[in-house]
Amino acid sequence: MTEPDRGVSAQAWLARLAECSEPGPGVTRLPFTPEHRAALGILTEVMQQAGLAVSLDAAGTLIGRLEGPAGAPVLLMGSHQDSVREGGAYDGIMGVVLPVLALRDLKAEGVRLPFAVEVLAFADEEGVRFPTALMGPRALAGTFDMAALDMCDRDGVCLRRAMQDFGLAPDDLPRLKRDPAQILGWIELHLEQGPVLERAGQPVGIVTAICGIERHGVTLTGKAAHAGTMPMQMRRDALAGAAELVLALEALARDTDGLMANVGTLKLRPGAVNAVPGEVTLTVELRAPSDETRARAGAELTRRASEIAARRGLGLEMTRTYAQAATPCAEAISAWLSRAAANTGQEAPHLPSGATHDTSAMADLCPVGMLFTRCRNGISHHPDESVDPDAMSAAIDVLARVLRDVGQAHEHSAPDGPVPGH
Amino acid sequence: MTEPDRGVSAQAWLARLAECSEPGPGVTRLPFTPEHRAALGILTEVMQQAGLAVSLDAAGTLIGRLEGPAGAPVLLMGSHQDSVREGGAYDGIMGVVLPVLALRDLKAEGVRLPFAVEVLAFADEEGVRFPTALMGPRALAGTFDMAALDMCDRDGVCLRRAMQDFGLAPDDLPRLKRDPAQILGWIELHLEQGPVLERAGQPVGIVTAICGIERHGVTLTGKAAHAGTMPMQMRRDALAGAAELVLALEALARDTDGLMANVGTLKLRPGAVNAVPGEVTLTVELRAPSDETRARAGAELTRRASEIAARRGLGLEMTRTYAQAATPCAEAISAWLSRAAANTGQEAPHLPSGATHDTSAMADLCPVGMLFTRCRNGISHHPDESVDPDAMSAAIDVLARVLRDVGQAHEHSAPDGPVPGH
Repeated sequence: MTEPDRGVSAQAWLARLAECSEPGPGVTRLPFTPEHRAALGILTEVMQQAGLAVSLDAAGTLIGRLEGPAGAPVLLMGSHQDSVREGGAYDGIMGVVLPVLALRDLKAEGVRLPFAVEVLAFADEEGVRFPTALMGPRALAGTFDMAALDMCDRDGVCLRRAMQDFGLAPDDLPRLKRDPAQILGWIELHLEQGPVLERAGQPVGIVTAICGIERHGVTLTGKAAHAGTMPMQMRRDALAGAAELVLALEALARDTDGLMANVGTLKLRPGAVNAVPGEVTLTVELRAPSDETRARAGAELTRRASEIAARRGLGLEMTRTYAQAATPCAEAISAWLSRAAANTGQEAPHLPSGATHDTSAMADLCPVGMLFTRCRNGISHHPDESVDPDAMSAAIDVLARVLRDVGQAHEHSAPDGPVPGH
Repeated sequence: MTEPDRGVSAQAWLARLAECSEPGPGVTRLPFTPEHRAALGILTEVMQQAGLAVSLDAAGTLIGRLEGPAGAPVLLMGSHQDSVREGGAYDGIMGVVLPVLALRDLKAEGVRLPFAVEVLAFADEEGVRFPTALMGPRALAGTFDMAALDMCDRDGVCLRRAMQDFGLAPDDLPRLKRDPAQILGWIELHLEQGPVLERAGQPVGIVTAICGIERHGVTLTGKAAHAGTMPMQMRRDALAGAAELVLALEALARDTDGLMANVGTLKLRPGAVNAVPGEVTLTVELRAPSDETRARAGAELTRRASEIAARRGLGLEMTRTYAQAATPCAEAISAWLSRAAANTGQEAPHLPSGATHDTSAMADLCPVGMLFTRCRNGISHHPDESVDPDAMSAAIDVLARVLRDVGQAHEHSAPDGPVPGH
């Protein structure tokens, strides 16, 4: 059951961490800055209270480690310390604090685990300061591209220099690569950033997959004309064609399980009250937890746009500008989370994550899972971002329970037996 | 029958007039400028060749008058001399040259009319230089607002000063008001600015009415959201609502005789590829030759927008930003034009004018009618604007024939009998 005092304690830590921010509304904490440094000080304090050994790796990832028996594998947990500009006090950083508080509970209860646990606070997930992100988990997975070190922020400071100034040795990044055989898995806690759990009245939920994303640029070309002199029947109105496409995509996504579609930008030319629109450019974004679903939707987008353009005598140009595969969560880890939630009295709905997370990169290293907490009004990346103490308390309970449950299962298995989640 | 040499002659005059332009593509001839002055010189030349007495009134309207019997009424014809910036060589000015060439034909044939004829070249119809227009016809109709004299162009030159510098006496404008009892009517020749006559394969057409226009600003307000985390079923997507409205208006206009509808501008916010649109502002323009049709369409716009907003949970704000009543052409004058066209072997389709013309203001003074010529690809207000010599020749024939026909009808009626068109 949830115990509000844990949630209140979490909120107190998060309030202190929210002070580690550039001036202005909400929280602005970018990687390798004085604000980052200040946050690491507070995280070190709470990690040490939980009995963790604290270190900073070459990627700027703060690691709080609970040692296990000699040669035992490690379970990784955590999230990112950074925020967007004028963001909230929960996105990322809550996923560092709550696992630490779960470990503090286990320590208080004298629980000993048959494996090591590390809570990781990655430096940069949001990619706000540099045009790259996920360096911490990519270094662990061995997928970090060293060329990214030459990317610069808007003040002309390159990533390599920013890291060096932060006291790090970026040339050591390749040495951070972990041996998958030594890792039980990765669990990330994050706020949902959407309205599903709040609407369901549930404090926590279990992520089935991080959605794959693809984006398309679409241009429909008709014929600009005087809206007073071009008869309706002779118009080739690019906006009317675009309107059909917007509605076709909405209907497709509503009718397809898991699929989300968005037309988020639309510009027309010439753009005068008395001019029939001759050209519309718009963007389409498709997301789905299944790459097959997304691929089918992409094909359907092409088919519908072509049909509309042909019927209306419009030119059509489409370019896929971005694609990122879905990251399915490991069934074994989702099963741990489900059992732990049930054992603490939570229904914990299963839902996909529409946003990308550190988990996307960790999936290249080991089996991954994610726990969501509900958030207020689905708001994130905004000063109004909020997670209630009850939800945080429930999340701490589920995380502590996972550690206990997996610990018991691990002890009952033979030393060389199957490792859960692999 | 059309005689190409007349069209070729018209084209030669129009080519000379097109030289009266600011440098740059196409024709740029604004009122009360050296280019205006140069054009008046050429128009004076062609008017004098046609035997007309030439004068300039206080509004800058060049008047070429064929005197009639003492006390006889006058038939007014003409259009405007000015162009838009980087416009074409036909819009407006062709409607001055062709009636003059028709009168030149009658003079060559020794035809004497029982009424006077004036061909008018108004200074400003496009309203490009000053935020007002139609001064010439409004002065004749007594509807000119003297306050407009204080409006300034983008160089800070006020209309009053520009007219004085042109040698005019703007304070005399009220004296230009004509006595409707002395006027038989007004006939304007203009290029269609649309594709209807070209598509029909006809050189000339007869305008039934100048469409009324109304414009509305529409704002649909939904809820901006992250396109990855907001489930489809919970979205309040302002763009999807706008798309429905665009298509509803298109269908309404296609299904309603004479109605034209256009959504010519559309802006969405926040306007990011991964953001569900929370707000869309768009403009709706409705045009119809019948004010009743347009009023019904305006009511239907409100009904459909309200239904869409209610069904989708969107906020709706609508403001009518502009309204201008339709100008029906006088049946008597359209009948003159129809008979004259038939007598010269033209089918002359009847069609509405979606654009506004000097005729709109002349309708406050006397019965009005308009003759359209076909234009190439429906293009106007552009350097590519073009009217073929055959169409101009056919128009000259129709205008000359109207003068002869009305002259004969006028002679056969009693001196105090009914005046055609009243």
